[in-house]
Amino acid sequence: MSERHAALNTDLYELTMSAGYFFSKKNTIATFELFFRNLPDNRQYLVFSGLKRIVEYLLSLRFTGDEIAYIREHDAFRHIDESFFEYLKKVSFTGTLRSVPEGTIVFDTEPVIQVTAPIIEAQLIETYLLASVHIETLVASKAARVVDAAYPAPVLEFGSRRAHGTEAAVLAARAAYIAGCAGTSNVKAGMEFGIPTYGTMAHAWVEAFDEESDSFETYHKLFPHKTIFIVDTYDVPAAIEKIIRMGKRIDGVRIDSGDPLETSRAVRAQLDSAGLTDIKIFASGNLDEYKIRELVSRSAPVDGYGVGTQMVTSADCPSLNVVYKLVQVTEPDGTEKPCFKMSSGKKLYPGKKQVYRISEGDKFTKDYVCRDTELVPKSGKSLLETYIEHGKPVRDIPRESITRQYVMDQKKQFDAALFDFPSSYKYHVEVSDGLEKEYLALREKMMADN
Amino acid sequence: MSERHAALNTDLYELTMSAGYFFSKKNTIATFELFFRNLPDNRQYLVFSGLKRIVEYLLSLRFTGDEIAYIREHDAFRHIDESFFEYLKKVSFTGTLRSVPEGTIVFDTEPVIQVTAPIIEAQLIETYLLASVHIETLVASKAARVVDAAYPAPVLEFGSRRAHGTEAAVLAARAAYIAGCAGTSNVKAGMEFGIPTYGTMAHAWVEAFDEESDSFETYHKLFPHKTIFIVDTYDVPAAIEKIIRMGKRIDGVRIDSGDPLETSRAVRAQLDSAGLTDIKIFASGNLDEYKIRELVSRSAPVDGYGVGTQMVTSADCPSLNVVYKLVQVTEPDGTEKPCFKMSSGKKLYPGKKQVYRISEGDKFTKDYVCRDTELVPKSGKSLLETYIEHGKPVRDIPRESITRQYVMDQKKQFDAALFDFPSSYKYHVEVSDGLEKEYLALREKMMADN
Repeated sequence: MSERHAALNTDLYELTMSAGYFFSKKNTIATFELFFRNLPDNRQYLVFSGLKRIVEYLLSLRFTGDEIAYIREHDAFRHIDESFFEYLKKVSFTGTLRSVPEGTIVFDTEPVIQVTAPIIEAQLIETYLLASVHIETLVASKAARVVDAAYPAPVLEFGSRRAHGTEAAVLAARAAYIAGCAGTSNVKAGMEFGIPTYGTMAHAWVEAFDEESDSFETYHKLFPHKTIFIVDTYDVPAAIEKIIRMGKRIDGVRIDSGDPLETSRAVRAQLDSAGLTDIKIFASGNLDEYKIRELVSRSAPVDGYGVGTQMVTSADCPSLNVVYKLVQVTEPDGTEKPCFKMSSGKKLYPGKKQVYRISEGDKFTKDYVCRDTELVPKSGKSLLETYIEHGKPVRDIPRESITRQYVMDQKKQFDAALFDFPSSYKYHVEVSDGLEKEYLALREKMMADN
Repeated sequence: MSERHAALNTDLYELTMSAGYFFSKKNTIATFELFFRNLPDNRQYLVFSGLKRIVEYLLSLRFTGDEIAYIREHDAFRHIDESFFEYLKKVSFTGTLRSVPEGTIVFDTEPVIQVTAPIIEAQLIETYLLASVHIETLVASKAARVVDAAYPAPVLEFGSRRAHGTEAAVLAARAAYIAGCAGTSNVKAGMEFGIPTYGTMAHAWVEAFDEESDSFETYHKLFPHKTIFIVDTYDVPAAIEKIIRMGKRIDGVRIDSGDPLETSRAVRAQLDSAGLTDIKIFASGNLDEYKIRELVSRSAPVDGYGVGTQMVTSADCPSLNVVYKLVQVTEPDGTEKPCFKMSSGKKLYPGKKQVYRISEGDKFTKDYVCRDTELVPKSGKSLLETYIEHGKPVRDIPRESITRQYVMDQKKQFDAALFDFPSSYKYHVEVSDGLEKEYLALREKMMADN
């Protein structure tokens, strides 16, 4: 997923602020934390994803000569001294990145990524980090619900054409797989991440032949194993009748339109009456977790689902309130100062934090967010791990199949109610007394100062 | 916007079908048309965008050796003869691309892109074409509404961090600009497409200083022209008071939280009472066309808007029903056959088409969709233009600023009711008698055959 001009894929204000820091706070060390300000109404948990891309970006962060030339052209930089552009030529990420592992089930309030670096570097990377976590966590969180609804039937991710561009298609395929999908239709995602790829034929294939049965015969000859025919190009019962008459061994049929409950029942009956009980039925066509749950609850004879648009755009919740906030600065003299934005009732806890996931027996009971320096709670496992230390990688990102297994394992450790929808269940995230006190103290100080 | 492994950014079934066509229909010429099957409930028109990227993709379409090696590994291709992979090594796009110009206001049913090419090539490119048109048209169509709501106040696109990935951020910036936004915060989009870029400071800038007024002073010294301060980090009236006391000439203040109506009124009053009537007020923070229209209708003293998440994710409608359908094949013997998919009541007109936009005086009255070979209606302007002919580019894509002007010019030529929301107005798209008859005849034939 290397990206041309990645360093430039940022908001202009990250660059103006960087220039500002360069001339006024070059030696200040900052800690920023990335977290979800709140969970949307129809999400009770999120599946964190997007870290792999961030690590690659940070380790290769550079500005090219033409990029710097473009930045300099801006009217805003008219009065900025040459030394800043000399700095940009040499800049790289020299800081420390802590993060919860990809695939971790996370909640609002808790930091999922923490960056400690010279303030210029920590600021410059904001937009890229947010955009990367946003798309992957968004889709992984939606996909986890779809996978649950279909379980134990497998879900394939088929959304490349309706994802928000071709990059989003690849990232969505990765996120959906991590969250439990069995595979993707996207070939690039298959090649880059080792995700199983699936696909057979479109309606166009059938239409390109004078007779539907010719299209089936030709396809079966070329792809005699794992053959799946699309059967709704013209008339479903007629297509099934043709398959029965063909007498070839095929693996399945795909229904892509109409009412999937009625159609799957009719198709099953028709196939079974011809003794073709082993031909599987796959359903696709604007499905989501709600429609799949309805099909499952009514015992639709569907053996697998292809899900696209609704999942890769996270249609019922197409964005997450993900933010990256300055929580602490360390001045050149060593003074550590917790920071936070105060206005408009958005509560933000100051200071560098850690998150512990507390267990009882084999179940998670709550998360505990505290200052990084506070005492470790008993039976708590820390979630933030170090991936980059002073600009050097110190921990590998697991293969996607391993991360997928990690998601599945975690699901067993939470109360099952977390995965219901709709549901009023809320997992408990506790904020330490230390953090609450610091928040109140800072708030008082700010009000007195302003 | 060159993309690595672009040819592989496709669904696996495009490749299996291509192999199938290679061995059975190599010399068939196909015409596919890309169109919007319906307009979503809350859209009355779409602003077509995404063509530039498609032209670049088609002109550079190639498979690399490692890509072909990856494809061959697939179990599905186990029985496929070597000659297909030899073909893939040499494949390029040799067909013809017709499209409506970028920025054209379009409606459902009418083809916006038409590809005529050897069927293998025309099929291979489906996923990429759909994904590219989808994201840009989606965002341009949303942005046009936001721009209308704010008019004449300018709208800046600020959504990079919440777009669906960093590529979507750049594509959304381009689409929003074409649709009428005044500029973007995205630096890469600025460099690639010549879009004006904007940006000042975040809350973090203010927090990084002990005193808010130090953060303002430092910023003003470095960026003395077009200075805009963010004033809601701690307490808005206190921040405005500091600006008044500073006595420096600044251009504006930005409010990013709270109730923008109340806050803008209070800020305006505070500034005006100090004689600072020329300091402008900018509002941002989860705005969309509905909120902006409300602010405008209540005469909020806001001089410009920054819009992000809601616009770049098209939050009230995060996907469009865009499809790419086979409409005609020409067999090696010259026989032309119109095609269509019939099932489940989705009406699709067969055959290669043209779209005419009919005017009366200086107003558009309706669009007329007909067979490409039908008589040209009087006072009709054809919308589909040829961009690539037999693999060679024959028409340039205008600069983004020109396309933006084209969108604005068209808006004056439609009934103003088209741009209201909500509204029951529906622009008339007429389908020719010739197309309707052909549809009915084919439908009858299909039903008899099946």
